[in-house]
Amino acid sequence: MKQQINPVINQTVKVASPGTVANLVCGFDVLGLCLDAPADEMTVTIISEKEVRLKSADGYNLPTDPMQNTAGAPLVEILQELNADFGFDVLIKKNIKPGSGIGSSAASAAGAVVAANHLLNNFFSQEQLVRFAMSGEKVASGVKHADNVAPCIYGGITLIRSIFPLDIVPIPAPELWVTVVHPQIEVRTSDARQILKKQVLLKDAIKQWGNIAGLVAGFMKNDYDLIGRSLEDVIIEPVRSILIPGFDDVKKQSKAAGALGGGISGSGPSIFMLSTNEQTAEAVKKEMHTVFNKIGLEHHVYVTTINQQGVKVLKDI
Amino acid sequence: MKQQINPVINQTVKVASPGTVANLVCGFDVLGLCLDAPADEMTVTIISEKEVRLKSADGYNLPTDPMQNTAGAPLVEILQELNADFGFDVLIKKNIKPGSGIGSSAASAAGAVVAANHLLNNFFSQEQLVRFAMSGEKVASGVKHADNVAPCIYGGITLIRSIFPLDIVPIPAPELWVTVVHPQIEVRTSDARQILKKQVLLKDAIKQWGNIAGLVAGFMKNDYDLIGRSLEDVIIEPVRSILIPGFDDVKKQSKAAGALGGGISGSGPSIFMLSTNEQTAEAVKKEMHTVFNKIGLEHHVYVTTINQQGVKVLKDI
Repeated sequence: MKQQINPVINQTVKVASPGTVANLVCGFDVLGLCLDAPADEMTVTIISEKEVRLKSADGYNLPTDPMQNTAGAPLVEILQELNADFGFDVLIKKNIKPGSGIGSSAASAAGAVVAANHLLNNFFSQEQLVRFAMSGEKVASGVKHADNVAPCIYGGITLIRSIFPLDIVPIPAPELWVTVVHPQIEVRTSDARQILKKQVLLKDAIKQWGNIAGLVAGFMKNDYDLIGRSLEDVIIEPVRSILIPGFDDVKKQSKAAGALGGGISGSGPSIFMLSTNEQTAEAVKKEMHTVFNKIGLEHHVYVTTINQQGVKVLKDI
Repeated sequence: MKQQINPVINQTVKVASPGTVANLVCGFDVLGLCLDAPADEMTVTIISEKEVRLKSADGYNLPTDPMQNTAGAPLVEILQELNADFGFDVLIKKNIKPGSGIGSSAASAAGAVVAANHLLNNFFSQEQLVRFAMSGEKVASGVKHADNVAPCIYGGITLIRSIFPLDIVPIPAPELWVTVVHPQIEVRTSDARQILKKQVLLKDAIKQWGNIAGLVAGFMKNDYDLIGRSLEDVIIEPVRSILIPGFDDVKKQSKAAGALGGGISGSGPSIFMLSTNEQTAEAVKKEMHTVFNKIGLEHHVYVTTINQQGVKVLKDI
């Protein structure tokens, strides 16, 4: 027998929903990693009205129609699935800038469903939550994809082996520091996708699957050198990196400063670099500042680690 | 200081050099697996003449010019590398039929270099031995590739993340049984390579690298279900399998009999299937017999396991 959802009107929960790095260089469309920071704050309350109400506690002018909002659409689906006689009120304080390439839309979708599930006595599995959250990604980009929402919900590093049917594989990894720079330019996901070629050379594809196999093995063997050698992308990065000024210099100087490697976060414009320790991650930050200050581009840098937990329940209210 | 090679004239060693399965369905050109059987027997002796002498103890009419022989070319390279004042006599008894698709040429090359290295006080590393053995593969197919010689020398399952520079990654895996059927038809490696398209769809490549990442994770997590789900090839198999009569039926019936999955071994015509236990592997064998008996095609089936050791020194003589 299924457990009960026990919804309690006016019960409230606050969660922190973190940023994520999709693709991880050689894992285009299939790998993702959960960051410790930045994270959105979301407060979700069960209400007696059968609706989803959205409010914003930040400066972003996000749609309040639930079906046009990445946090709203998944909650509407949850209510439909439960044939619920209640609804949700959602207060969103975004700290992850939309369009930054570190999973802003995924954080809204994942945070909403994890918070709702907490209020529903954890009725749904993590995999079910990913399915709901993917409807949020569809609102944002027109496509149901899971390479941000899966790591955001599961934490750590996840492989999306397949979308249809959905097959999420958590990939254990050693401690890693992540330096992420967000240059203040706009790269639209649709543009970043459109410039990709529909066909690739078989010999390049072979290199790419050699690298993703090496990366997964490197993570699971705690082999930092292998991780570094495998962080190579011969298909997507050569095309997309031209949209990001300073990309080549950031990569070159970060590696010279000791980073294992890195590349474009999601579809950009953010760039991430992996390091084995905080000191190196800070040295990488310095290099990123140097590059973007030189070309006069406003930017923000995060030095953080892998978040093993994913969306975190902060408190019941 | 390097250790000494201490060659002793007339010292002899006998090795067993096993068959291998390259590609492993979704790992075209990068993955390989070492079989416990069949294996060639090779007897190598240090001789005072500066040359490589080849003799055959089987019915195969292999070239005796060392530079035209897959066992000979790597030994010539070893002698050149050492600037040696001695040579090797090699007696080969092939049990792995050339052209079967289970690494016959690799077994000759790998067996020769491992035997020679044993006689040379294990002077060379395994990686160096793979480099020498790749010269044997070049004799056989015109291309230096390592997806058979690496698992043959290292044992177990290996990933060739990159050929230039050579990067071999051993992949730990749980116990697996392998059923291999060799239908007695000829598929020339050059033909099998020529029918492949030079370009592939990006969306197919993404599926393929999702699968190889899943396969590596499945091996390292001892997750049999994940291994099975990941044994899917949307790029090479649909093209190459048309060269192998009965392929679709073998695959379908083997899986119905409980196999996790499988596909073309190397460039064919052999087909391999992985199972979790001997009983299932034997049931798969029965299905393979049924399919090939039905279409009246002579064939041979091996039921074996993964060989964790690779080329094995049988005895010093």
